[in-house]
Amino acid sequence: MRDPAGYSYLSFLTDYGREDGFVAICHGQMLERAPAARIIDITHDVGPGDLRRGATVLAETLPELPPGVHVAVVDPGVGTERRGIVAHAGGHVLVGPDNGLLVWAAEALGGIGECHEIANPGLWRHPISRTFHGRDIFAPVGAWLAAGLDPAEVGPEIASSTLVRLEEPRRAVSGRIAGGEVRAIDRFGNCQLSLLREDLTGLGDTPPDSLRVHLPAGRWTVPFGTTFAEVDPGAPVLLVDSAGYVALAENGGNAARRFGLGVGDAVDIEPGDDAPAGD
Amino acid sequence: MRDPAGYSYLSFLTDYGREDGFVAICHGQMLERAPAARIIDITHDVGPGDLRRGATVLAETLPELPPGVHVAVVDPGVGTERRGIVAHAGGHVLVGPDNGLLVWAAEALGGIGECHEIANPGLWRHPISRTFHGRDIFAPVGAWLAAGLDPAEVGPEIASSTLVRLEEPRRAVSGRIAGGEVRAIDRFGNCQLSLLREDLTGLGDTPPDSLRVHLPAGRWTVPFGTTFAEVDPGAPVLLVDSAGYVALAENGGNAARRFGLGVGDAVDIEPGDDAPAGD
Amino acid sequence: MRDPAGYSYLSFLTDYGREDGFVAICHGQMLERAPAARIIDITHDVGPGDLRRGATVLAETLPELPPGVHVAVVDPGVGTERRGIVAHAGGHVLVGPDNGLLVWAAEALGGIGECHEIANPGLWRHPISRTFHGRDIFAPVGAWLAAGLDPAEVGPEIASSTLVRLEEPRRAVSGRIAGGEVRAIDRFGNCQLSLLREDLTGLGDTPPDSLRVHLPAGRWTVPFGTTFAEVDPGAPVLLVDSAGYVALAENGGNAARRFGLGVGDAVDIEPGDDAPAGD
Repeated sequence: MRDPAGYSYLSFLTDYGREDGFVAICHGQMLERAPAARIIDITHDVGPGDLRRGATVLAETLPELPPGVHVAVVDPGVGTERRGIVAHAGGHVLVGPDNGLLVWAAEALGGIGECHEIANPGLWRHPISRTFHGRDIFAPVGAWLAAGLDPAEVGPEIASSTLVRLEEPRRAVSGRIAGGEVRAIDRFGNCQLSLLREDLTGLGDTPPDSLRVHLPAGRWTVPFGTTFAEVDPGAPVLLVDSAGYVALAENGGNAARRFGLGVGDAVDIEPGDDAPAGD
Repeated sequence: MRDPAGYSYLSFLTDYGREDGFVAICHGQMLERAPAARIIDITHDVGPGDLRRGATVLAETLPELPPGVHVAVVDPGVGTERRGIVAHAGGHVLVGPDNGLLVWAAEALGGIGECHEIANPGLWRHPISRTFHGRDIFAPVGAWLAAGLDPAEVGPEIASSTLVRLEEPRRAVSGRIAGGEVRAIDRFGNCQLSLLREDLTGLGDTPPDSLRVHLPAGRWTVPFGTTFAEVDPGAPVLLVDSAGYVALAENGGNAARRFGLGVGDAVDIEPGDDAPAGD
Repeated sequence: MRDPAGYSYLSFLTDYGREDGFVAICHGQMLERAPAARIIDITHDVGPGDLRRGATVLAETLPELPPGVHVAVVDPGVGTERRGIVAHAGGHVLVGPDNGLLVWAAEALGGIGECHEIANPGLWRHPISRTFHGRDIFAPVGAWLAAGLDPAEVGPEIASSTLVRLEEPRRAVSGRIAGGEVRAIDRFGNCQLSLLREDLTGLGDTPPDSLRVHLPAGRWTVPFGTTFAEVDPGAPVLLVDSAGYVALAENGGNAARRFGLGVGDAVDIEPGDDAPAGD
């Protein structure tokens, strides 16, 4: 049975890079099965096998895309017994390996709904390789779904509670201290933390003008602002970024480089004392 | 009031890079408002905040694209009082921040025509962030214009003379010397200068067979040719590039690396003396 | 005469990179002539002038794409007398310089069929530059063909035997030793060899559990498996990759870095002796 409607958009995220032909090969598989779909490449520059990075970018991007089928492949366990899955969430359909990659995005879309295990080889490209399931399984299945395939044809329904989950980023707010970690670093060196604005306002009535930030490399006092250019060029600033997270940035500079920060580094924030930065 | 025609093409240039989801997020905003538009990504690898680079690539690319709406975002002043603008030029429509990014391209398209300030929040994505106006303002406005929106609905008309301009690259031709600078360096290391062929022919009747080139690292005598392979592999050559500018190149090599050149470096050219290169 | 059918897909591979506007400029030329075509970017990250890399990626990608016109430009001889060609192969049409770039792909598609020299300036963009035939010649010709142009209008038919060929990668199987070379290294550091599975099974009845691999940096004993995760994390493995070639990989790691391998390096494989790896 087919849903005659299907989806107009097919997004795609991988760790394949763009220097090889892998992404185009998957586009080819998609277009052969869903020639009317528009493909949106999210990114293919996820670090090789970096599931947390893939899951983070996916969770931040999908809520901003039109309803569609989203194929994501960061798959260090390709060719093993790990399952392939199709998960519904908020009017979207996610396709990829069951290794935690899709779960945060599904939750960002409103929560994981109906899930199916990918188990029907009739939908796949043959012969199936043991190393390139993006081409052989996920792109074809995603394309068929975009073309209107009934998800029940993909394979048996499975309970969302059985899906593999990644460990959540640290977020511990207690007393004066909001304890988080660097959730993502973007191209500009902005360090997105695993903390929300409310984690900071919880420290007092309103965000204080400056906060005390504990990083692996030391402690700094940083003003809390609303945009980069609110501080002097080259000065650091804490702000709420466009995805709603607290971020440590530098006006016109690279905060990650300035503070030697990497993804996963612990960041603790407490009310500041208006001492000069960098003391 | 809407122009039922609109534009089929929506181009996009930013400094967002492709490792994050920012570009795809903007595509999502565009496609929700102009689902029939074809998106052409010009580049997203402009150096963070590098307005001159963004303006140069935009000016070189837009005259080669079909008529359309062109959204460009290199925006170090995001979230401040800098204006957002829509500028018409030669049958094209440019959308972006009023920081000089769009002006050279508008002139390359034949000159800046009708301009509007972006001031109608009814067209934007909400809530508006203070750090990601590509997503919240420029992509939505560009998409509505591609879908046929009357530019008058974007905001009040403004005089093109009020637009912020970048300083022009150095171009001083006098006596025997044509004084320019490196305008752009492409992936191959070809150094595009801010000089036109006529600046050199002005030195004499026709371009001499070889020219004397003064660079920060020293002086060289370089033949004037028409293509790379006209000189020996590894030899330098001056030629008129595909955009009409004089360029310093190396056959099969990287002239920028060979001569230690960066964008903005001064380059003076005078008639040569047929001395061997590299003296 | 025009074939009213044409092709829906127009793929594109170059060494132009994505930091300049070159790729978008070519897209513009394509869309002006074939507005209904879907463009598939294969990669634009081929090393500058690296014909063997371009030819390898093209040969691996095209058999996975739907029938279409494929424009490829890695063109160190641009502006010289080297020919431009259109080659038919297995229901696909290849367009590019006659420097070996297209031949392996045409053979991977089933063999080179009818060929034409690009000689009709009426199809090109004018004025013709001496340095950017992707924009001026190959993209326009490819687009016209996608739009249904009769290939005979491109220029005179030429014999496929006259096409320039690249030297084939080393593949010498004799006695106990299968002598190959590194054909390609992908983003993950997997080293694809110029050897097929049958070259190894020729060593005995079935692939032995482990093989003796001679590399420039030394000799290793490596198990033969079917996927990365079959060996311990960080351990090397030989397998047949998704394109059908024998590849040297590392589970969760980068085999090229581990073994100091580069494209073109000689790799000899003989039956192993079950000695531990790295001896």
